[in-house]
Amino acid sequence: MVEPDLIQDSLPHNNYTDSDLGSNFKKLRITDNVRELQTVLRDKTTSRGDFIFYADRLIRLVVEEGLNQLPYRHCDVTTPTGHKYEGLSYQRGNCGVSIMRSGEAMEQGLRDCCRSIRIGKILIQKDEDTREAKVVYAKLPPDIDQRKVLLMYPIMNSGNTVIKAVQVLKDHYVKEDNIILLNLFVTPQAAKALVKRFPNMKVLTSEVHPVTPNHFGMKYFGTD
Amino acid sequence: MVEPDLIQDSLPHNNYTDSDLGSNFKKLRITDNVRELQTVLRDKTTSRGDFIFYADRLIRLVVEEGLNQLPYRHCDVTTPTGHKYEGLSYQRGNCGVSIMRSGEAMEQGLRDCCRSIRIGKILIQKDEDTREAKVVYAKLPPDIDQRKVLLMYPIMNSGNTVIKAVQVLKDHYVKEDNIILLNLFVTPQAAKALVKRFPNMKVLTSEVHPVTPNHFGMKYFGTD
Amino acid sequence: MVEPDLIQDSLPHNNYTDSDLGSNFKKLRITDNVRELQTVLRDKTTSRGDFIFYADRLIRLVVEEGLNQLPYRHCDVTTPTGHKYEGLSYQRGNCGVSIMRSGEAMEQGLRDCCRSIRIGKILIQKDEDTREAKVVYAKLPPDIDQRKVLLMYPIMNSGNTVIKAVQVLKDHYVKEDNIILLNLFVTPQAAKALVKRFPNMKVLTSEVHPVTPNHFGMKYFGTD
Amino acid sequence: MVEPDLIQDSLPHNNYTDSDLGSNFKKLRITDNVRELQTVLRDKTTSRGDFIFYADRLIRLVVEEGLNQLPYRHCDVTTPTGHKYEGLSYQRGNCGVSIMRSGEAMEQGLRDCCRSIRIGKILIQKDEDTREAKVVYAKLPPDIDQRKVLLMYPIMNSGNTVIKAVQVLKDHYVKEDNIILLNLFVTPQAAKALVKRFPNMKVLTSEVHPVTPNHFGMKYFGTD
Repeated sequence: MVEPDLIQDSLPHNNYTDSDLGSNFKKLRITDNVRELQTVLRDKTTSRGDFIFYADRLIRLVVEEGLNQLPYRHCDVTTPTGHKYEGLSYQRGNCGVSIMRSGEAMEQGLRDCCRSIRIGKILIQKDEDTREAKVVYAKLPPDIDQRKVLLMYPIMNSGNTVIKAVQVLKDHYVKEDNIILLNLFVTPQAAKALVKRFPNMKVLTSEVHPVTPNHFGMKYFGTD
Repeated sequence: MVEPDLIQDSLPHNNYTDSDLGSNFKKLRITDNVRELQTVLRDKTTSRGDFIFYADRLIRLVVEEGLNQLPYRHCDVTTPTGHKYEGLSYQRGNCGVSIMRSGEAMEQGLRDCCRSIRIGKILIQKDEDTREAKVVYAKLPPDIDQRKVLLMYPIMNSGNTVIKAVQVLKDHYVKEDNIILLNLFVTPQAAKALVKRFPNMKVLTSEVHPVTPNHFGMKYFGTD
Repeated sequence: MVEPDLIQDSLPHNNYTDSDLGSNFKKLRITDNVRELQTVLRDKTTSRGDFIFYADRLIRLVVEEGLNQLPYRHCDVTTPTGHKYEGLSYQRGNCGVSIMRSGEAMEQGLRDCCRSIRIGKILIQKDEDTREAKVVYAKLPPDIDQRKVLLMYPIMNSGNTVIKAVQVLKDHYVKEDNIILLNLFVTPQAAKALVKRFPNMKVLTSEVHPVTPNHFGMKYFGTD
Repeated sequence: MVEPDLIQDSLPHNNYTDSDLGSNFKKLRITDNVRELQTVLRDKTTSRGDFIFYADRLIRLVVEEGLNQLPYRHCDVTTPTGHKYEGLSYQRGNCGVSIMRSGEAMEQGLRDCCRSIRIGKILIQKDEDTREAKVVYAKLPPDIDQRKVLLMYPIMNSGNTVIKAVQVLKDHYVKEDNIILLNLFVTPQAAKALVKRFPNMKVLTSEVHPVTPNHFGMKYFGTD
């Protein structure tokens, strides 16, 4: 967990150039409203009640934008007054997977947008001896290889945990381009590492910034 | 309640030119995801449970975008690790006002984004003799003239009800440029009428289309 | 709106004898937990955010108990492992009706327990000249005479508004014994007046007390 | 996962005698409404959307009853009209702990009743070689030894997982009589095992029945 002191000043937030991250790396449209949500989540004086409420709002916006990355097909419907309306419908066959523990904070936001979506989870921990990230637990929908996967992890510093989790999904025969990573805050180096390692995975975040709010999971759940 | 049969074909949805509606008239960014929400709300085969769920999602997106129309100010905060973060904070002093009955469907979405915002309401009905729109009931925050007002009404065909409601707000000394109208579906003629009548009011919608889903309130609440 | 000063001391809360109110008058089981909810709702120092949160909890408990007053029928189901289970199922055909404005605070709690229940509403106001309660607005499910009606009104001082609303329901051919009034706080005189006037209507409350929190609607919605 | 075929008939549900389970073993008051919730959760034809909705309702009722097991103290408050009201207030210092995975289904219900309660979690898995239950993961509030703990686990067949989890709590210096186990369905043998092992822990359930809906976690989350 690194929070470099100097980089922030030399690299003011929100003007990081994302151009070298490629077309599969997406950022939420940053409005004043989104900036306010980010501000509240960074402020150390925010109460836990407010933190959860504002986090849930930002998460829902990321989820809605994540759903927008899914494939849609044309679909004509008939209105109650008999008009034909040329609409869109997204193709069924999705699921969510949260990476414990902070990723679990995004589960309710996902349910708020996809009422009865299946939600799996993965727990990765560092081996105390080797310091290597190890998969301790994985609970996934049985037919996950047939599904688009909304992978949830709000804070990324090095990207190592997510890289391990994507590997778990691949071991379950999920195709890389079927994965959409939903994230709130990511460092430039984690963004680059992910994009380099999994160029066909979609990544959606709300902010690329050298300092990420690492207290997220602790503040959201109230446990250390 | 008019739903012209022919216009829809000659004026396919979403390519209506909004340019003549001025800069205070805003449209939600239309993504595939938003198009899907609109499609479900128009489809006559949608169940009431789904209708409410999808309507709530679209309403939340409009509310979040509406909050983005409020004035924000710079605000430095300190992170738990002692960094200074240059953020934004919106200025307090808002309220919601729903126009009965369909506008009430937007109240919960507003609460989902602004936890304890004050919510007033206005009931306007046609006089059975004169056919004129009359204010039957109004319950507003006492200091509404000091507040930004998020006025809620999801479906506008002629704009007459909203025009009457804005007049009520003005009678309570609310300034026109303090009003942000939150809407889901509006006809071109209602959009024009509103913009012409109240050029300083902000209007936010998700779709300008000659045919609006007039069954909205009935389907949402299950009453005729 | 009367809040007698002296009665409270001479008639400590919760030992009011309900025995003369008959078997259709029900009180929520009063636990320490419910007492705490009531306490927070009476405390003038409670913030609006907390007020809404605690009110919603008490409302949900009243709604769940209200649903328990509906008729159920036996219904055998089969479990995933093939066992037969002798269960209960309530008979469809309900709706909610809120009496404006405070009754509307109970709508979300009703939806939290009955996802897509139809919700009508009634607005009653005093005629400014005659001081008589008049029905200004009523929006009801079209087939309400075929339904059980969960009538919602949280605070009752005299009972006059509710008496008028029940009359509206009866004018729509709702049978008295199909009405279940959901209430939070009621004065003894209002309880007696209701029971006397509509002996076949069920009434469910959380507290009979000479002083009711009349600021309920104002605090919940933030409007006067 | 044992579901005995014969016991059910010889021991019809809900007339299991709980008397030998002692005073710390509590059952939710079983109303027709609760019976309906239980029926929907057992029925194999229930859709996932309905399953989640009905489970959330039953969970909230168990949580509210669980909160009622906490210690309360008298607390006088002043009403907005200046009356003194003798109320109750529960003593701060609680937290929730869910036992993965099914226990996590109860987290949202807990939040619905205690907005910003801290929620820890424990993961216990069988060692593949020794078949012994092992603690794989535990994330708990740092000061948990100072708190009442609402331990969440909806389905108990043998009680072994919960026994292991309680041991984890005790290893963190939580006192047995500070633990309230929140459960939905428990077998008689698990109930007896728990009560015998931890006589000072409170146990709250909605049903003691030899057959428990073991598909609970899978149906709630949609993963196997």
